[in-house]
Amino acid sequence: MSVLVVGSVALDSVETPFGKADDVLGGSAVYFSASASHQTPVQLVGVIGDDFPEEKLKALSDRGVDLAGLEHAKGESFRWRGRYRHDLNSAETLETRLGVFSHFRPKIPAQFQSAKYVFLGNIDPRLQLDVLKQVAKPKLVACDTMNFWIESRRDDLITLLAHVDLVTLNDAEVRQLTEKSNLVQGARWILERGPKTVVIKKGEHGAFMFTNSSVFYAPAYPLESVFDPTGAGDSFAGGFMGYLARTNDLSDASLRRAMIHGSAMGSFVVEGFSVTRLVEVNSADIEKRVAEFHELVSFNKSLER
Amino acid sequence: MSVLVVGSVALDSVETPFGKADDVLGGSAVYFSASASHQTPVQLVGVIGDDFPEEKLKALSDRGVDLAGLEHAKGESFRWRGRYRHDLNSAETLETRLGVFSHFRPKIPAQFQSAKYVFLGNIDPRLQLDVLKQVAKPKLVACDTMNFWIESRRDDLITLLAHVDLVTLNDAEVRQLTEKSNLVQGARWILERGPKTVVIKKGEHGAFMFTNSSVFYAPAYPLESVFDPTGAGDSFAGGFMGYLARTNDLSDASLRRAMIHGSAMGSFVVEGFSVTRLVEVNSADIEKRVAEFHELVSFNKSLER
Repeated sequence: MSVLVVGSVALDSVETPFGKADDVLGGSAVYFSASASHQTPVQLVGVIGDDFPEEKLKALSDRGVDLAGLEHAKGESFRWRGRYRHDLNSAETLETRLGVFSHFRPKIPAQFQSAKYVFLGNIDPRLQLDVLKQVAKPKLVACDTMNFWIESRRDDLITLLAHVDLVTLNDAEVRQLTEKSNLVQGARWILERGPKTVVIKKGEHGAFMFTNSSVFYAPAYPLESVFDPTGAGDSFAGGFMGYLARTNDLSDASLRRAMIHGSAMGSFVVEGFSVTRLVEVNSADIEKRVAEFHELVSFNKSLER
Repeated sequence: MSVLVVGSVALDSVETPFGKADDVLGGSAVYFSASASHQTPVQLVGVIGDDFPEEKLKALSDRGVDLAGLEHAKGESFRWRGRYRHDLNSAETLETRLGVFSHFRPKIPAQFQSAKYVFLGNIDPRLQLDVLKQVAKPKLVACDTMNFWIESRRDDLITLLAHVDLVTLNDAEVRQLTEKSNLVQGARWILERGPKTVVIKKGEHGAFMFTNSSVFYAPAYPLESVFDPTGAGDSFAGGFMGYLARTNDLSDASLRRAMIHGSAMGSFVVEGFSVTRLVEVNSADIEKRVAEFHELVSFNKSLER
């Protein structure tokens, strides 16, 4: 099965303690697509301005990402400029220029409307709801969001929750949305409002997946060096959704493996700027890292004699 | 095998968003002992003042903890007063009165000197070294420390590292000691200085165990409510060391199970003030939680068909 993603396509300028990159390919839909493309065909819906250096998109089209839903609008492309300090844990946003993204109204091309796996990247929840009206009977709809929408479009976001199967949020977003400092309580709060599955991303501290009947925890891979954390969450989501779409299996066992595939992709993307590492790795690298995750947490419950 | 612990015995006064407790049993050796006693006999070496309400120690002696090494000194007992705010992540110390603990010179009773498993709780590294001179051929020596000693007794601490098999530190202590912000690099730095095993406790974010040939990660149990985080690290250490002493097995597989037993005890202690929960739980509760940890991280590497 292919996966449809709606989200941002941006030009990022990033400074980390290890280097600097200007106007590199970024945005939630980009990281998601590059990551998911290792598992399954990806259909991208987004917008770029007339200043966008289109040759940069070759990194995605070379990986088979279908860009038929990428709108070309008059005006400037979405640009983000940020900096990471020594601990690499949180980005300091130096500049955000939404450009054409501020007027983005996702239009799902006819050939994408039957998508069975849909990921609503972090955009206005009213637009996320609008996308759902344009697709016919998806098997799994997942959404992401961010602090800005939780604050400014809270009611719309809660309406959206009733229409999605799965939510991916980071720990701070869960606390902000649910007003619960405890993540287990926060997850329950969200599960009561519609989604059957809540994935809570904790960055370098791994990710939880809550359903009404189970809790799964995927650690973050203990990397000896993190180069640039940008896009880790979206790459996680791409690996996760890509795995589910490829296997077309929504069992608990499959969701758990999807979490690990997401974590693997999140661990790769931070090894370089932009999508460099995501487009470099191959399926053997991914399977090796999945096996390393297995080794990382494996233990026998009882004594072998 | 029994386990010998040297550390603090204190009277704690704690405030959390959920309640308040005054002059309750606390201290690193107390939490360690109450936790380890579920696995194996424990020998405690510490000091209390003449004001210590000795009936409080019944919680330990009832669990078979051997208090023959608990010195009764003239003066005030060690008292700690602290508060946790809403997020429960970090204690705010309101008052520390070392009392008799400031002149503590651990004397290991003759019958404890052949201990095969030794845990050097967080005291002056010069005293930790002195304890090692008093014990004969232990099979495993582990030590803990804290920011105060890393700052004030750095050279002694590094000398100590060459004489211990295993170190337990929290993430902030690893960063402070090694001057590496990356924990994998920090663990390597410590492994190069003597210990064969480094355990890094990350509180609500679980714990890592590094050796020269493997990395293991134990998650924190996703508790719906944390009542009082005091003693979680020492209870972890007690469950960990107690498990190793009981099985007398230092294989990688056993160390991994020990990490989970430590995590289980850390998850119990925070459910109540002081050692209340540690002395309440039974072996069935512990085995149940170990099984829950297993379920929490279990996944199959590859698709079942």
